[in-house]
Amino acid sequence: MKNRIAELFNIKYPLIQAGMIWCSGWRLASAVSNAGGLGLIGAGSMYPETLAEHIRKCQLATKMPFGVNLPLLYPDIEKHIQVILEAGVKIVFTSAGNPAIWTSRLKAEGVTVVHVVANEKFARKSEDAGVDAVVAEGFEAGGHNGREETTTMCLLPIIRNAVNIPVIAAGGIGSGRSMLAAMVLGADGVQIGSRFVTSEESSAHINFKTRVLQAKEGDTVLTLKQLTPVRLLRNEFFLELQQAEKRGADTAELSQILGRGRAKKGMFEGNLEEGELEIGQISALLKEIQPAHIIVQEIINEYEEVRKNAASWKLS
Amino acid sequence: MKNRIAELFNIKYPLIQAGMIWCSGWRLASAVSNAGGLGLIGAGSMYPETLAEHIRKCQLATKMPFGVNLPLLYPDIEKHIQVILEAGVKIVFTSAGNPAIWTSRLKAEGVTVVHVVANEKFARKSEDAGVDAVVAEGFEAGGHNGREETTTMCLLPIIRNAVNIPVIAAGGIGSGRSMLAAMVLGADGVQIGSRFVTSEESSAHINFKTRVLQAKEGDTVLTLKQLTPVRLLRNEFFLELQQAEKRGADTAELSQILGRGRAKKGMFEGNLEEGELEIGQISALLKEIQPAHIIVQEIINEYEEVRKNAASWKLS
Repeated sequence: MKNRIAELFNIKYPLIQAGMIWCSGWRLASAVSNAGGLGLIGAGSMYPETLAEHIRKCQLATKMPFGVNLPLLYPDIEKHIQVILEAGVKIVFTSAGNPAIWTSRLKAEGVTVVHVVANEKFARKSEDAGVDAVVAEGFEAGGHNGREETTTMCLLPIIRNAVNIPVIAAGGIGSGRSMLAAMVLGADGVQIGSRFVTSEESSAHINFKTRVLQAKEGDTVLTLKQLTPVRLLRNEFFLELQQAEKRGADTAELSQILGRGRAKKGMFEGNLEEGELEIGQISALLKEIQPAHIIVQEIINEYEEVRKNAASWKLS
Repeated sequence: MKNRIAELFNIKYPLIQAGMIWCSGWRLASAVSNAGGLGLIGAGSMYPETLAEHIRKCQLATKMPFGVNLPLLYPDIEKHIQVILEAGVKIVFTSAGNPAIWTSRLKAEGVTVVHVVANEKFARKSEDAGVDAVVAEGFEAGGHNGREETTTMCLLPIIRNAVNIPVIAAGGIGSGRSMLAAMVLGADGVQIGSRFVTSEESSAHINFKTRVLQAKEGDTVLTLKQLTPVRLLRNEFFLELQQAEKRGADTAELSQILGRGRAKKGMFEGNLEEGELEIGQISALLKEIQPAHIIVQEIINEYEEVRKNAASWKLS
């Protein structure tokens, strides 16, 4: 029986590298695709012309399928879509917006469309909009996150019951064990972010990669719940936000503290105290910077090892 | 290879019914133990003489091993321990307190001791204190919960790496799929709460059981983070707490709103608006009231079915 996600994207392993702002350009995406997974260029931190350049370079660096992750709420969205279609990219992961608006346009151009959701309602809405698969992203994931705070362990069976299209698990996954656990819970494939942040090919600043590797359990927190919830590492910037929330700051004040370019400052420029450091809870389990192809192979090897071991876990 | 948790407790399946306030008396505990799992009497909502009565009745209702869950912060703790030892109970799960204080006393009397933890630090502390196993309880679990908000998906590998003693997974587990996923993540067994709240033998009020079955994704929330974090269903009582927190209420005011007997009022007396309704995120997946032995059998059957299916999930 062929895996539905491997089949959908025509890739070897149902393992997708999340499109992440400031971390996933053409170097990372092409490395993951060349290793048998699916690499995604994160358009969220790119001007349209930057995205066009990354797509061009990625096409030169790999003959394997790759895609683009596109947050739908960005002002340049029309231009981004034009860039994607003109460059002939055939896989788009959309997030942070309404899948009903862009899916049919992309599908009409022969693009395979996947939408990222954090609850049952948007999973159904995505299926109704005609997407080919959904990413179900749990509370433990880094970056922007759902308001319901449903964890991967609970969200996967809920989304699995709610839709018929393939489900890709995200949040808390960075190893072969967690990849297999996600499949056991009903996923057809997995999307991995945090572990690729610390890959050699990630464009994150070395200060940020090093900080992620030092992270301990409890170092990340879901914050900015009044604006858009986001999981990040505790630092000076987070403490400032927290103090503002404690004294009852409104959304306008929180937006002002957040300001512009906070994520770039932290993740790309390496300012660990004033920047926004988006990362998932599994950062506590990450120990070293590795090439992307080694990460893919370690995950697949561990998946297979545990899957074989499970043959002896008979209970009845 | 024999399962370490089944061996530790001399039970058929490494499936433990969580000791829960107002839900798990002798009826539920004996039914689960008779079905091949391990039933726990929840001492947290019992006076010492009530606990003694429940232990006596449980001993009459089953010849299989069962245990008592004991929150260590209760004022009557000395009396509770005396009752447990005098009655000859040989399995105690301790929670909400320091395992270093009581473990050696219980172990000296031949009791198998398990401590419930929500982070790596307390897992190590528990192992150092000499406990026989730990329960690793994730953010999605109902009732009292850890401050780090680490989910089961991330907590299990962290705790598995941190200790050598057996690890029991809790939080987000109510099906055979999730039981197998927990084992894949490194657990030796599972502890299940929410699903047994809606068992026939649960002493929860029928109003509460019915409300739990109607719960949708996002209906539970981790609150009271300034006092002791607790996951409960949104209702009038929760809204009152939320409004108080928004206007910056201190812990004294929050304690006053909480008052005494809130959980009893909601879970045992069935007052769904004024009471505290403790339940986990998997409540969204629960559909019917069932006898405990059917719950155990359904979980084990699904575990075995998915485990066998996984034999065909080869990726490399």
